[in-house]
Amino acid sequence: MPILSQTEIAALNETASFNRWAGFTVVKAQDGEAILEMPWHPNCGQYAGHLHAGLVSALLDTACGFAAVTASGVVVTSQMSVNFLAPAEGDSFRAEATVTKSGRRQVFGESRLFAVQGDTSTLVATATAVMVPIEGGAKPKSEP
Amino acid sequence: MPILSQTEIAALNETASFNRWAGFTVVKAQDGEAILEMPWHPNCGQYAGHLHAGLVSALLDTACGFAAVTASGVVVTSQMSVNFLAPAEGDSFRAEATVTKSGRRQVFGESRLFAVQGDTSTLVATATAVMVPIEGGAKPKSEP
Amino acid sequence: MPILSQTEIAALNETASFNRWAGFTVVKAQDGEAILEMPWHPNCGQYAGHLHAGLVSALLDTACGFAAVTASGVVVTSQMSVNFLAPAEGDSFRAEATVTKSGRRQVFGESRLFAVQGDTSTLVATATAVMVPIEGGAKPKSEP
Amino acid sequence: MPILSQTEIAALNETASFNRWAGFTVVKAQDGEAILEMPWHPNCGQYAGHLHAGLVSALLDTACGFAAVTASGVVVTSQMSVNFLAPAEGDSFRAEATVTKSGRRQVFGESRLFAVQGDTSTLVATATAVMVPIEGGAKPKSEP
Repeated sequence: MPILSQTEIAALNETASFNRWAGFTVVKAQDGEAILEMPWHPNCGQYAGHLHAGLVSALLDTACGFAAVTASGVVVTSQMSVNFLAPAEGDSFRAEATVTKSGRRQVFGESRLFAVQGDTSTLVATATAVMVPIEGGAKPKSEP
Repeated sequence: MPILSQTEIAALNETASFNRWAGFTVVKAQDGEAILEMPWHPNCGQYAGHLHAGLVSALLDTACGFAAVTASGVVVTSQMSVNFLAPAEGDSFRAEATVTKSGRRQVFGESRLFAVQGDTSTLVATATAVMVPIEGGAKPKSEP
Repeated sequence: MPILSQTEIAALNETASFNRWAGFTVVKAQDGEAILEMPWHPNCGQYAGHLHAGLVSALLDTACGFAAVTASGVVVTSQMSVNFLAPAEGDSFRAEATVTKSGRRQVFGESRLFAVQGDTSTLVATATAVMVPIEGGAKPKSEP
Repeated sequence: MPILSQTEIAALNETASFNRWAGFTVVKAQDGEAILEMPWHPNCGQYAGHLHAGLVSALLDTACGFAAVTASGVVVTSQMSVNFLAPAEGDSFRAEATVTKSGRRQVFGESRLFAVQGDTSTLVATATAVMVPIEGGAKPKSEP
């Protein structure tokens, strides 16, 4: 499985329609670590107006995935466990991920999500992920 | 914590901007069970064109939440564990949730996500959730 | 990976010193399902005198593992998520496990733990597990 | 809920029959952190002779619990997610836990398990836990 560079991971990020829609930006992806950001936008709320758990999970999972890609090539997630510590309320959100263990058959990662409001950054969720390297690497669905 | 009817839960679903955007429909919500559906649409893909893990998680979590609301009133999720069994590829998706245990301080639920393609329904992910009843119930953010 | 019969799984159970010490008995293991039992004994308590979370986890994990062995040969667990629904208080305990999805590279399972007191059986915990088939199958450590 | 000192937590550890049997020692418990150790002994093996997943889970959960007790008083665990990174093979084992977020209704923690062999310490498992403070604090079961 070829390991991807940060530029290639940023390009991979753009192939995912949901990542484009949500505005995910790859801030860092190298050496088993990744940082991902997205701005708040009004279509991402749960009923109380905070960031929806689906977006919280998407950011935490994608950051783990990109961290894994720097260590083991393209992966798919087989398990994710998310702890929601506090309401995800902010102007923007930043997920930071680290590979815990990178094996031939499985990659383990963990990530933290921060809600950013002005100068203040609050830890709002944590996650762990089990991922599996894909034989043959990235196969983005071709679009006509 | 007042328990909500299916009609009230469908209305609660509409107060969440992300649920409206993604097209979540409450098919059932009563007696500790809930069924939620959404159609595939092209802004929901991950890099290979399947339903994004964030949407998979959102459906599984929201279904657990609505099942819990029928038993214990409005809740927030504090923990979710998702197992991704197969690529989520379909024309539409259906999450089925059940309350496992409903306590005063915590509610436990589990859910399954099916990808639907024509007449075929495939189990693609499972989840468990730990939820906490909110004192005072739903407080949707007012919108001007 | 050779699939094991219930008799072989009962023998595998006896090769694990902790399973022998705790008194695990294989009640069923076939067709992707397994049932495991153990009696209460006084060295298994947590501080309040209920079954220790470590034993709860051991039963839930081992049952998932034996269910997987009937479908995919010997496995190791890479991830387990346990929800503790109620105090595990009983004369004996019974774990029931089912394989959710059996793949070449990963097996997914789920299990439920019941505390048994006289005629009453109470659901006290649930678990999900991600397991990986071992190439070459069981390799019990030889004992001199 | 009264917060306990390290001495009180070491005493609480001794009230759990399983902790005494397994030889858990409280090395540290203060300021939202805890370290727990146990020696290998031959009744704790799984089928390949490594530390049983039940003991791995017990150490990770108990360490999280003791870290939480220093922040929020006595707790019970409602959810634990464990990732098994490598075979737990060593002369002794050390679990290190930290409180991630301590609330009135829930406490979140995470822990890491190291297998120690001579001078070498290997990360073999990680866990996250959701815990709930017990009203009235510790109520060890009285023994005649």
